[in-house]
Amino acid sequence: MSLKLYFAPGACSFVPHVLLEMSGAAFEPSMVKLHKGEQNSEEYKTINPRGQVPVLVNNGQVITQIVAIALHLDQIFPQAGFLPTEPIARAQAISTLAWMNNTVHPTFTHIFMPQKFSDLPEVQAALKPYNIQVFRQQLGELQALVQAAAAKGQAWLTGEQFGVLDAYALTFTRWGTIAGITPEEHPDLWAFVQKVAAVPAVARVIERERLQLNMGQPA
Amino acid sequence: MSLKLYFAPGACSFVPHVLLEMSGAAFEPSMVKLHKGEQNSEEYKTINPRGQVPVLVNNGQVITQIVAIALHLDQIFPQAGFLPTEPIARAQAISTLAWMNNTVHPTFTHIFMPQKFSDLPEVQAALKPYNIQVFRQQLGELQALVQAAAAKGQAWLTGEQFGVLDAYALTFTRWGTIAGITPEEHPDLWAFVQKVAAVPAVARVIERERLQLNMGQPA
Ligand SMILES: N[C@@H](CCC(=O)N[C@@H](CS)C(=O)NCC(=O)O)C(=O)O
Ligand SMILES: N[C@@H](CCC(=O)N[C@@H](CS)C(=O)NCC(=O)O)C(=O)O
Repeated sequence: MSLKLYFAPGACSFVPHVLLEMSGAAFEPSMVKLHKGEQNSEEYKTINPRGQVPVLVNNGQVITQIVAIALHLDQIFPQAGFLPTEPIARAQAISTLAWMNNTVHPTFTHIFMPQKFSDLPEVQAALKPYNIQVFRQQLGELQALVQAAAAKGQAWLTGEQFGVLDAYALTFTRWGTIAGITPEEHPDLWAFVQKVAAVPAVARVIERERLQLNMGQPA
Repeated sequence: MSLKLYFAPGACSFVPHVLLEMSGAAFEPSMVKLHKGEQNSEEYKTINPRGQVPVLVNNGQVITQIVAIALHLDQIFPQAGFLPTEPIARAQAISTLAWMNNTVHPTFTHIFMPQKFSDLPEVQAALKPYNIQVFRQQLGELQALVQAAAAKGQAWLTGEQFGVLDAYALTFTRWGTIAGITPEEHPDLWAFVQKVAAVPAVARVIERERLQLNMGQPA
């Protein structure tokens, strides 16, 4: 098996990057510099015509989309326990993953890349503050999930094993600080994300991507 | 096994509605009138606090999100072949499903419910025409997938068996006509969707939801 991941530092590709690192398998991380527009180069578009990370290439076969990559890694590394196996728990974990991916993630896109939703500068400018508020609420929902898992005595969001949702939670919380949402606003979420960051495989990816968790300006 | 589906006529819940009908299993379809705001009633919010359809209740366990419901139905009805089983083909089908769910579907939400993205009437008004253009392009991408499947001699989007993507394709194409995108703009997509609509289980759901495929005004 040959595995290659196209990722960008700090982007949503962090999720499969962590899963691959955690799998223990050999893989080739390949950096795409989004700020230089490398995702729109001719070469990259032959891999992913939509010009986005993440892309997983498994033995020459291209797989795009976090949800598809995460489910595929769960399938090829069953011992890693990235998702629960009991059918209802699994469906509920995938439900939260889908919500993160189709709701929370695109909310941040309205803040960070509003040009995807309008070509009018004034509309782009207006989308930002409104969606920062929405993102703040969604981080609140995420914190409630963290609290519910803790109340059930679970170590991680979907049970005893570190999984897909835990990695995605770190990415969103970190993005929140870029949008001016401070760690103090969601202390339990922040504490959880620190715990995620301390997992050795996660720490190695943070190091490779050279990430700082709190991107907020010091007061 | 007791299965209950909360759906709204013409909404995205059409996708699991079709899969359930196709499974041959008994299930209880329960209609939620979105235009009357029933999704925001106290009663419905105890089922889905996010106030949306679809919701699948399997033996009393609530599962939200199309992606999670579709994967769950694929797991409990393996003989139906809603998704390919070969790992790479499966990952690529789930990739397209994720793209439909996190990109195409939310684009339509910008057209139909722009109030989800801004509280300013002028911003809401500006989101509509821009996202109709984006939706038009995305239907073009969907048509390209239909053409690619046909070129490979496949009967349906993911192979020889009718699946999740085929049902979702009908919903988007029908929504396009609400946004003024005519069948003539994507003739191969339209022909494909007619074929989807003629599948007996799909035809029964169309009848139950009382759907009209082309919602455009006659010239
Ligand atoms: N729906 C995609 C979204 C991927 C995505 O949003 N990628 C962003 C980084 S977080 C990207 O590549 N942006 C660059 C661009 O759009 O130009 C998924 O779930 O994988
Ligand atoms: N992310 C959800 C989206 C569900 C959704 O968009 N549901 C719409 C109908 S297509 C709805 O219930 N809208 C009512 C509302 O938001 O008030 C999924 O994939 O299931």
